[in-house]
Amino acid sequence: MPKISEARRSERREQILAGARRAFARHGYEGATVAHLEQETGLSRGAIFNYFPDKWAIFYALAELDHARIGTVWLEEGFAAVLRLMTSENADWLGVYFELSRKLRTNPKLREQWERRNPELDERLMARFEELQAQGELRADLPAETVGRFLGIVLDGVGVAVSAGYPVDAEPLLDLVNAATAPQ
Amino acid sequence: MPKISEARRSERREQILAGARRAFARHGYEGATVAHLEQETGLSRGAIFNYFPDKWAIFYALAELDHARIGTVWLEEGFAAVLRLMTSENADWLGVYFELSRKLRTNPKLREQWERRNPELDERLMARFEELQAQGELRADLPAETVGRFLGIVLDGVGVAVSAGYPVDAEPLLDLVNAATAPQ
Repeated sequence: MPKISEARRSERREQILAGARRAFARHGYEGATVAHLEQETGLSRGAIFNYFPDKWAIFYALAELDHARIGTVWLEEGFAAVLRLMTSENADWLGVYFELSRKLRTNPKLREQWERRNPELDERLMARFEELQAQGELRADLPAETVGRFLGIVLDGVGVAVSAGYPVDAEPLLDLVNAATAPQ
Repeated sequence: MPKISEARRSERREQILAGARRAFARHGYEGATVAHLEQETGLSRGAIFNYFPDKWAIFYALAELDHARIGTVWLEEGFAAVLRLMTSENADWLGVYFELSRKLRTNPKLREQWERRNPELDERLMARFEELQAQGELRADLPAETVGRFLGIVLDGVGVAVSAGYPVDAEPLLDLVNAATAPQ
């Protein structure tokens, strides 16, 4: 029996994720059928579900990648780079996230998994906020977590605007956010 | 033929809207069937669709009411009151809005209707921002529209958090928003 190499498996996985991202963006999470996944990945359902147990696992893998990408940009380039990334995100794809809020709120198991997408990255980010506070670059009269929460709320709000088809100009928004988070 | 009084018609309309709000909150917009609407309103489909042409018209009437309520609170009590309102909003109901972003983005007719829910209220709000700028209570180095847009983004971000089941503490958030929008 021929053995599929690790490289080949990894390549297949990438192919499934890229196709599934298109399928979800096009049809929404609930709307994306197995036939749509087959169509966009160019693979049979047998091949797809050989790599992922179910549709949720595929979406979760994509959300984990997005979360890691955003966290890494935030750590390495700062909030401005993350905000710019969000304003240029694909509207169809962003919409899939907002479609899922009810599911995540009402299913405790999914929710727990969701909150621990990349825990070590979240910890590094919180440590970074505290470092910026200590350096006098971020207001320290509020807990780092509160400031981080505010930045997350702004990012979500931008996501809503972009997914609803309203382009956001990142620069004046950054001006406002900087005024909010600078030492007072 | 008995004539239904204006007061009775108005009462029926209220009954339909209250029941439909529960149905949408419970099942989502797409998930709410005509049977759900009948169940929650206590009226037959014939009676319901005697008052509204279709499901969208019922949801739109509710969104128009919400928009008017938020705009009025904003004008009369200021942004802090609106933000507190948003943090105490029902998570299920808020989720319905985010479920609809794709529909609103991709259907130009609905989108146009959506943007003109209460145009005179939006105009009064913009005039209020300009007044606050002239009085030195709101930063004037950015256009009033840009500052208003930022506040809308924060409200949407809070809505996302609440609808995903993460309570938002309004007070520290107001502190950050005030720092962002105060004259610099």
